[in-house]
Amino acid sequence: MNSNGKLEDKVKEVEQIIGKYLPEEKGYQKTVIQAMNYSILAGGKRLRPMLLQETYRMFQGTGEVAEPFMAAIEMVHTYSLVHDDLPCMDNDEYRRGKKTTHVVYGEGMAVLAGDGLLNFAFETAVKAFSFAEEKEEFDRIAKALSVFGQKAGIYGMIGGQTADIEAEDMGDGVTEEQLLFIHEHKTAALIQSAMMIGAILAGASKEEVGRIEKCAYNIGIAFQIQDDILDVTGSLTTLGKQTGSDEKNKKTTYVTLKGMEQAVEDVRALSAEAIEILSSFKERNEFLEGLVKRLITREK
Amino acid sequence: MNSNGKLEDKVKEVEQIIGKYLPEEKGYQKTVIQAMNYSILAGGKRLRPMLLQETYRMFQGTGEVAEPFMAAIEMVHTYSLVHDDLPCMDNDEYRRGKKTTHVVYGEGMAVLAGDGLLNFAFETAVKAFSFAEEKEEFDRIAKALSVFGQKAGIYGMIGGQTADIEAEDMGDGVTEEQLLFIHEHKTAALIQSAMMIGAILAGASKEEVGRIEKCAYNIGIAFQIQDDILDVTGSLTTLGKQTGSDEKNKKTTYVTLKGMEQAVEDVRALSAEAIEILSSFKERNEFLEGLVKRLITREK
Repeated sequence: MNSNGKLEDKVKEVEQIIGKYLPEEKGYQKTVIQAMNYSILAGGKRLRPMLLQETYRMFQGTGEVAEPFMAAIEMVHTYSLVHDDLPCMDNDEYRRGKKTTHVVYGEGMAVLAGDGLLNFAFETAVKAFSFAEEKEEFDRIAKALSVFGQKAGIYGMIGGQTADIEAEDMGDGVTEEQLLFIHEHKTAALIQSAMMIGAILAGASKEEVGRIEKCAYNIGIAFQIQDDILDVTGSLTTLGKQTGSDEKNKKTTYVTLKGMEQAVEDVRALSAEAIEILSSFKERNEFLEGLVKRLITREK
Repeated sequence: MNSNGKLEDKVKEVEQIIGKYLPEEKGYQKTVIQAMNYSILAGGKRLRPMLLQETYRMFQGTGEVAEPFMAAIEMVHTYSLVHDDLPCMDNDEYRRGKKTTHVVYGEGMAVLAGDGLLNFAFETAVKAFSFAEEKEEFDRIAKALSVFGQKAGIYGMIGGQTADIEAEDMGDGVTEEQLLFIHEHKTAALIQSAMMIGAILAGASKEEVGRIEKCAYNIGIAFQIQDDILDVTGSLTTLGKQTGSDEKNKKTTYVTLKGMEQAVEDVRALSAEAIEILSSFKERNEFLEGLVKRLITREK
């Protein structure tokens, strides 16, 4: 994705907004804040805040109210990686070519840093109320907070992680329904959260938010299937992480369940439908459409 | 505290309210929900939701808007225990005479159950907006959410836990300032959160919320000093947990820093000031005053 100048600028813009909301590293709690910021600043595509902002813009949102949510959703995504990497979870020592949080700060501090990020995500999202004056604005932020909580928790990402942990012990006994549940919750939920919050804050109707939810579902599932594909076809150098790890761990993936050909075809169909939904709204956002296409057809 | 019938009824009332907000154990995420509910239902004094409700009542609050926050604050308290008990933290196998969450469900699931509870706490608190109609009600809930987040996170409880972990490696090099920071953040913060939220939701003025914050600070610090005292004087049978553990771990406590006599005197003074603040408001709440006295002078 680095070949695209416009995208690089956008990443910088998003990172500058996230930076405004990061906590200062001081006080007796300094270490946990350092661990939190280390985890956030370790990089990443900043996909979720970018999707949030671009969906907000597509629905003609112009104010700053989306900014706290942009920072907040990246904090939620980051905490999930910090806890996922723990020795009692995936036990990963490197992520994005950097040492994981527990390797640098110790396990106990990594647990606290993850907790700190999750809690701070909500603290940050709540700051959106400082931009509210009219009752309708309070109401939109309250609705956005509700989606934010639901899509991150047991009915969203955490639910997916739970099912994923249990699937690991089932080897090839994992069903397609179960795998789709995992992808929908572990991956699609935060993408839905990002895009739905952008739409809600900009004043989209309930029906429009519903279509955005479906569109984001497709993006999330396609993104995850593409991840499974890349795990087979990618290489260590381009991805910055070990590939072929799913096969090594005898993990059921979309590719092992449906075959490579079907997987590639499903990514194409899901992606096409997502773009179709995006292009069905009154106003278009070409950057957003391009981002979605690039994401799903990415080769690293 | 079981000798008091009225208190037992109150605990039942609070537990019934918490019960309304617990998630149903179903779906592919069932295991994490079971682990969450196991942790919440393992017992406890239900002190924080009780303080929240009684402060709400003292300020003439009557509606249901405090209920989601009551459940939410107990979820935050519970998640902190689940993560605190993890092998990479305090490594405790029993709490309140029951096996800890990671012993029953495994470490990975205990991390997720803690995350699930913290996230669900915010999801639950946000449900308070369903009781809001007027703009002023939205505003109060937004303010309560802000306090809720701040007192639980790095500027509250998590900050205290961070300082506590670092103090453990310092043996007797821990200063009084540091120890008070730990007690203020690890213990007092959630008590402040409970009482401040009760006051805010009932429409207390900013000045009144400030006095409640100070009162709750005293209660929290006194409660924690009393804990340090009981660790020396208590016994396994009455407390349901190993005592003398602080000495065994060579942990700096208020008692080792200031001596038993001073510790007892400080509990008395802090408690007296807390009661004085409580009795300074227009309306009194005798149950609340009695609860605070009982808490601080408790012998188990």
